[in-house]
Amino acid sequence: MKALVPIANGSEEMEAVIIIDTLRRAKWEVTVAGIDEGVITASRGVKLMPDAAWSELNPADFDILLLPGGFGGTEAFMKHAGVQQAVKDFNAAGKWFGSICAAALALNEAGVLEGKKFTCYPGVEAKLPPHIQPVDEAVVVDGHLITSQGPGTAFEFALTIIAECSSSNLSAEVRAGLLL
Amino acid sequence: MKALVPIANGSEEMEAVIIIDTLRRAKWEVTVAGIDEGVITASRGVKLMPDAAWSELNPADFDILLLPGGFGGTEAFMKHAGVQQAVKDFNAAGKWFGSICAAALALNEAGVLEGKKFTCYPGVEAKLPPHIQPVDEAVVVDGHLITSQGPGTAFEFALTIIAECSSSNLSAEVRAGLLL
Repeated sequence: MKALVPIANGSEEMEAVIIIDTLRRAKWEVTVAGIDEGVITASRGVKLMPDAAWSELNPADFDILLLPGGFGGTEAFMKHAGVQQAVKDFNAAGKWFGSICAAALALNEAGVLEGKKFTCYPGVEAKLPPHIQPVDEAVVVDGHLITSQGPGTAFEFALTIIAECSSSNLSAEVRAGLLL
Repeated sequence: MKALVPIANGSEEMEAVIIIDTLRRAKWEVTVAGIDEGVITASRGVKLMPDAAWSELNPADFDILLLPGGFGGTEAFMKHAGVQQAVKDFNAAGKWFGSICAAALALNEAGVLEGKKFTCYPGVEAKLPPHIQPVDEAVVVDGHLITSQGPGTAFEFALTIIAECSSSNLSAEVRAGLLL
């Protein structure tokens, strides 16, 4: 599996790094794509260097698109035409995509959450329309959409992604190595 | 509290970032100190930019020294005279210090684990002498030494550090925000 994980200034560093590292433990090819130029400063000041700039990549080359949370990063994903188009394209193509924490707002901005079962960080629902509301569950899978709530659910998010897209055996193997 | 967190090529990125981010959520001043020059490449390829080079800092200015795991990073901590001296100094001064995962080997290299109760990633004990062996617990506090086992115990490690060094109320508040 080839995973595309965009990060921007203000992305939540634990959510981003737990997703990236856990999927790489499953031998997935994960590309960290920078929305902002050069080193990005995450929500709690951790400085992350992307593998490539988003503009250098073709989202169509990837099997799954995963958006980490953090309000600053989410706002960047909401305003970025390329990320918005990629969300629409992954949804239209029936490819896997997902978000954790506040990043559900970036999926909603792309118009792909209506009629779907999903979750997000508690409180974020106030920024969503009344007919597009989350459920209060750690990880939710609905078709090829997979969503989660926050830093404390990020390991379960990544392990569920591995179980759904690869196999539950591989997910269990990675879980054991993490000591979860 | 002022925390010093060294990172080197091969440090485990989830362990490092969970410690840094969680302590910053408790309003601690956390400095990420690079042992290697510039951007470091962590154990699963995440590229982290330290806040400062270790050589620019005075470890005596900090209240707690915390070593993330990952075998490559641990080896760097074992070979680095400054890190080794800092571990000895924190121990001698009765200041807080700790490690997670393989980094217990770097504490042992500094000669501070003998007679202490501690833990590490399962299997790492084979690289320790027979009279210096870990217990199989997620997080262990012995005096001012605090140790933990791996990525899946990193949140509990950071939250225990906050509870021990600040307050259990603050730790509980940070835990709630993490959705743990």
